[in-house]
Amino acid sequence: MAKTIELLFDFVSPNGYLAWYPLNDIAEQTGAAIEVVPVFLGGMHRLTGNAPPMIRDADVKGKVEYSMLEMRRFIAKHGFDRFAMNPKFPFNSVTLQRLLIALDGQERNRLIDTLLPPIWEQGLDVGDPQAVGSVLAEAGFDAEALFAKTQDPAIKQALIDNTDNAVERGAFGIPTFFVGKEMFFGKERLEQIEEELAG
Amino acid sequence: MAKTIELLFDFVSPNGYLAWYPLNDIAEQTGAAIEVVPVFLGGMHRLTGNAPPMIRDADVKGKVEYSMLEMRRFIAKHGFDRFAMNPKFPFNSVTLQRLLIALDGQERNRLIDTLLPPIWEQGLDVGDPQAVGSVLAEAGFDAEALFAKTQDPAIKQALIDNTDNAVERGAFGIPTFFVGKEMFFGKERLEQIEEELAG
Repeated sequence: MAKTIELLFDFVSPNGYLAWYPLNDIAEQTGAAIEVVPVFLGGMHRLTGNAPPMIRDADVKGKVEYSMLEMRRFIAKHGFDRFAMNPKFPFNSVTLQRLLIALDGQERNRLIDTLLPPIWEQGLDVGDPQAVGSVLAEAGFDAEALFAKTQDPAIKQALIDNTDNAVERGAFGIPTFFVGKEMFFGKERLEQIEEELAG
Repeated sequence: MAKTIELLFDFVSPNGYLAWYPLNDIAEQTGAAIEVVPVFLGGMHRLTGNAPPMIRDADVKGKVEYSMLEMRRFIAKHGFDRFAMNPKFPFNSVTLQRLLIALDGQERNRLIDTLLPPIWEQGLDVGDPQAVGSVLAEAGFDAEALFAKTQDPAIKQALIDNTDNAVERGAFGIPTFFVGKEMFFGKERLEQIEEELAG
């Protein structure tokens, strides 16, 4: 039976970008499928009392600097030469997440492949629907239809439900992964996911 | 030239126990020496504004539970069947740390080898000098002379200096490792240390 890695994902997380490509390598090597679960990180933080590490750890001398060092090491290790913090970070990702919800299966994964480079390499302003729309259209998505769906109450509710459900399962940040019932949090856990899939 | 791993260590950290044995395996495999730098974690927390994860993360739903899960996974992976939380945790470790300061070089490492199993497997009450003393005596240390040294102002000051210096170098918790100028924090970084030593 083919194995599945559930990926709880929000475009706003730079660690989501950093985890995406090695996760796809792992999926390819192990024959596992990546099932994207779109969640809203802002809602997840509200529900859990969590906050971005840069805010939570700002009062601890050395801790944010160390996180940045580990991010640089991860980037160097994986050769992510094009990664650049988005100038509008932390941007509001709710529309992007609804776009993901509006798509099914592999089209979700393709939307991530399409939007990650503009957002996390080229500084795309995700608050500019024109700019996002032309990236989508260029990749062959029906941008107008997709944007219309982000106002559909069922799509809005599905994102809320995914977020509630993620917190219910124990998630508190992005990226979170599930292999069966085993939860893994953070890009540091990719090797454990590989071992879990192999085992 | 033989390589050195500096280990900033305090007996109070359960992660210090969990990291010690795999770190020794890495040292053996790579021919590196472990240079123990005794620090006082309580002082480190005061100086940096840090706190134990169980306290810092207590207000985030799911986060402490996840840390515990990762601890259980680490214990299972390394076969640490005898590990048991010390009933007096978080105990005051200042005397133990001064004992480490009072010893030189390999005797420091031997003191760690001697005390970790009683503390983190058999629930030794480190506040009971008799109990600690007999463990030391059984391992061939001069317990009386060592305990006397913990009242030596130079020993006390050396522990303070080590702690100040560690924070100055960017450390905020235990275990922290240095390979040259490269700092690594946490038992999750052991594989990176292995790569650093190999590179």
